[in-house]
Amino acid sequence: MRPYSIIKKKRDGEKLDREQIAGFLDGYLAGEVPEYQMAALLMAVYFRGLDHAELAVWAERMLHSGVVLDLSDIPGVKVDKHSTGGVGDKISLPLAPLVAACGVRVPMISGRGLGHTGGTLDKLESIPGFDVNLSIARYRELVADLGLCLIGQTADLAPLDRRLYALRDVTATVDSVPLISSSIMSKKLAEGIDALVLDVKVGSGAFMKTVQEARVLAETMVGIGRQMGKRVVALLTNMDQPLGRMVGNALEVRETIDVLRGGGPDDIVELTLELGAHMLVLGDAAADRAEALAKMRTALDDGSALARFRALVEAQGGDVRTIDEPDLLPRAKQTQEVVAKRSGCVQAIDTEKVGHAAVALGAGRLRVDSPVLPEVGIEVLVRLGDTVTEGQPLVVVHSSERSDVERATELVHEAYDIGAGEAVLRPLVLDVVS
Amino acid sequence: MRPYSIIKKKRDGEKLDREQIAGFLDGYLAGEVPEYQMAALLMAVYFRGLDHAELAVWAERMLHSGVVLDLSDIPGVKVDKHSTGGVGDKISLPLAPLVAACGVRVPMISGRGLGHTGGTLDKLESIPGFDVNLSIARYRELVADLGLCLIGQTADLAPLDRRLYALRDVTATVDSVPLISSSIMSKKLAEGIDALVLDVKVGSGAFMKTVQEARVLAETMVGIGRQMGKRVVALLTNMDQPLGRMVGNALEVRETIDVLRGGGPDDIVELTLELGAHMLVLGDAAADRAEALAKMRTALDDGSALARFRALVEAQGGDVRTIDEPDLLPRAKQTQEVVAKRSGCVQAIDTEKVGHAAVALGAGRLRVDSPVLPEVGIEVLVRLGDTVTEGQPLVVVHSSERSDVERATELVHEAYDIGAGEAVLRPLVLDVVS
Repeated sequence: MRPYSIIKKKRDGEKLDREQIAGFLDGYLAGEVPEYQMAALLMAVYFRGLDHAELAVWAERMLHSGVVLDLSDIPGVKVDKHSTGGVGDKISLPLAPLVAACGVRVPMISGRGLGHTGGTLDKLESIPGFDVNLSIARYRELVADLGLCLIGQTADLAPLDRRLYALRDVTATVDSVPLISSSIMSKKLAEGIDALVLDVKVGSGAFMKTVQEARVLAETMVGIGRQMGKRVVALLTNMDQPLGRMVGNALEVRETIDVLRGGGPDDIVELTLELGAHMLVLGDAAADRAEALAKMRTALDDGSALARFRALVEAQGGDVRTIDEPDLLPRAKQTQEVVAKRSGCVQAIDTEKVGHAAVALGAGRLRVDSPVLPEVGIEVLVRLGDTVTEGQPLVVVHSSERSDVERATELVHEAYDIGAGEAVLRPLVLDVVS
Repeated sequence: MRPYSIIKKKRDGEKLDREQIAGFLDGYLAGEVPEYQMAALLMAVYFRGLDHAELAVWAERMLHSGVVLDLSDIPGVKVDKHSTGGVGDKISLPLAPLVAACGVRVPMISGRGLGHTGGTLDKLESIPGFDVNLSIARYRELVADLGLCLIGQTADLAPLDRRLYALRDVTATVDSVPLISSSIMSKKLAEGIDALVLDVKVGSGAFMKTVQEARVLAETMVGIGRQMGKRVVALLTNMDQPLGRMVGNALEVRETIDVLRGGGPDDIVELTLELGAHMLVLGDAAADRAEALAKMRTALDDGSALARFRALVEAQGGDVRTIDEPDLLPRAKQTQEVVAKRSGCVQAIDTEKVGHAAVALGAGRLRVDSPVLPEVGIEVLVRLGDTVTEGQPLVVVHSSERSDVERATELVHEAYDIGAGEAVLRPLVLDVVS
C-alpha cells in the first residue's frame, strides 16, 4: 500500500493494520518513505492517536529497527527504571546501586538532559573520568559481574526512535502519548531487560501536568510492555517542586552520595525506596514491599549500597576519591543567593522554570548537541508550603562565568509564588499502574 | 519565530498572525523551511483549519509568490469562471466565447484533467494545432483584441501553489477547504481579473458530495475574493450525473460546437447561460439576469458566439475547419455500446465512476504528467431518471487500441444503479453564494 493511503487512513481516524504500519516505518528507516510523508503521518497520529493493536506494532517495529540485546544468559530477572523526566530527578544514581546491592541486576541505558529536565548521563559525567560510552560487551560484563551498568544509548539500539525523535522535535509532534510511549518503551526494551519500573512525573516540573494525563501515558506504556511479554509497573509521582535540594549535575551527585551514606533529603530517600521496592519485587529479590524496604534499609545502613556505587564508579573509570571527598567533584567558582521579594507562604513552585533557571546557568541544554557545565546549578533552600520573610534566601545559585545568572535569578523569582494562601501538598507517590 | 512554534500553535488550535504565516510560507518558498515542516503544518491545518484572517494572509502570500498579472490597461471589467471539477464539464469552452461576444473580456488560465475530472486544456488541445502555451504578452494581446484567451498556468504564476499542491498530493492534505480555496483563488487572482464566477460542483461526480460541504467551500472562496477586493459569485451546481452527453476531449469539443450553433444538450445550455449571466452582470455588460440572458440568446442565435470561438481557435493556432466539419476532430477507431444488465429506472449514477471509465479509456489521467488520448471517451445515452430495458445501450464507448475497454465497461456498469426505485432529480443550480 502506498504511504499516501496510510497517511489518509490515519488522518480519517481509521485503524492501520500490521502490514501498513510495518511497511511505513520500515520504508522510512530504509529511506524509501521521505521525511515529509513521515511528518504528515506523525501529525495525523498526534490528532488521531494509535489504538492498542496499532501501538503494539508501532513499538515493536521501533524496537526491532536495531539490535535488541539478549541478556538471558545472565542469571536472574534484569530490572530497569525509567523516569519521564523532572527537575532534580537524580533517583537513578542512588537507586541502581541500592537495588543491585539487594541482588537485582540493573542494566540501565540512560539519556541526557533536554529542555528543563536533567539527564542521568550528564550527572554521571560530572564525576571526573566517568565513561558512559562503554561497549556492549563491557556493559554485559558489568551487568553480569557487578550487577549494574549505566551507559548511553548506542547507535544500533532502536535507530528508528532516534530518527523519529529528531523529526518529531522539529515538527511539533513530540507531545503525543502513543509516540512518547513507543519511544520510551522501544529504547528500554532494547536493553535486554525482563521487567521495568516507570516513574511517570506529574506536576509543574513534568511534561504531564495532571494525574489524568500521566495515568493515560502510564497505562499506555504498561500496555506496550505487557504486549511485549515484560513485567512493567508505573508509579505516578509528584513533580510539583524540584526533587531533593539540588538541581545541577555535580550537585546532584553530592546529594546521591548523601543518600547512599544514609542521609539526604526525605523526598529523595522516599522515592528511591518506593521505586526500589517495586524493582526488588519484580526482580524476585523480595516477596513484598515490606521485605524489599527492609532489605534496602539494611543496604543503606551497612554501607553495601554505597560500596556498590563506588564499584560502579571505579568500573566505569570515574574518580572514586570523589565519593569520600565530594569536594573533589567540580565546584562552581561563584555562588549567590536569590532572596524572597516578599513575605508569605510558598503557595506554588513553577518547577519547569526552576529547570530553565538551571539551563540558563549551563546545567542543562535546549539543543541535543549543546555541552553542559558540570559544576553549576541551583540549591533549593525553600520548599512548597514553607513560610518566608522578605529578603530570606530562596535558593543558592552556583554559577560559572558562562552562566546567565541574571536570567536564572529572574526565572527563580517567577517560579516562586509567594502569597497569603496555602500550598496544596500532594503525596510523593500519587498512583501506581500495573 | 521558529517554524516549530508556528506548527505547534496551529496544532494547538491557536490563531497565527500575519508575520507567522508570511514567514513560514515565504521561508518555504525560499527553501529555508524544509518540506517536512511544511508537511506537518499542512496536516495541522487540515485538522484545525484557518480562520478568515489567517486565510486572507495565506492566499495573499500564495498569490504574491509569483507574478500577478496587471490587465488594468485593458478597458472593461475582466471576468473569469472557475469550476471545481466535474465529469463532462466542458462549460468553459462555449462560455468564454459567448461571454466575450457579449462584450465582457475573459482572461482564462485553465488546468488539465486529473483523476476523474476533465480539464479545459486537454479539451482545447484535442483541436489539432490549438496552442495553450502562449506567452503572457500574446495572452494580453488576445484578451485586449479578441476579448478572450485560454491558456495554461505558467511557471511564474503562483509558484508556491504548485509546490504546495505537489506536497499536499503526497501527504493526504489535498481535501482541506482552506487549502483548496487558497489554491484556487491564488491561481485565479494571479490572472489579472477583476471579477470571478465560481462553479462549485456538488454530487456524485464532484469533490464535494453534499451541498453543505460545497457551501462552506464556496463561502470560503468568496470570502478570500472579497478580502482581495474582487467581486466573486459562486454557484453550487449539480454533478449527480455527467454534464451533457459527452465525456472525453474531442467529444466535448463537438458538443461545444453544437451549443454554439444553438443546439446541444439542455443542461449544458442552461449552465452556460446561468454562469454567463453572472459574468455579464459582474462585467457591467448587463444590468440584470434577464438582460444578460437575452444578450446571450442573441449571440447564440446570430452566430456571433460561434464566430468568437472560431476567432479564438484561429488565434491560438487551431484548425478552424474542425468547427464547420467536426468530423475532422480526432475520432476513435472503435465504438461499442455498454448495455443495461437489467430493466428498471436509473435511480442513481456514480458519476465519479463514469469519470474513471473515461480515464480507463485514456481520456484522463491519474498522474499529472501522463498523456491523454484526444479521441476517446464516453457518450452518455441514458440519464438519471430514465427507464431502461435489459439490453438497451447505456453509453457508447469510444476507444483506441490503448484503451482499457473492459475496465471502462465494468465501471459504467458499476456507475449505473438501475432498479425499481425512483431517481432524486435535483435542480442544475442548487444555490448561489455572493
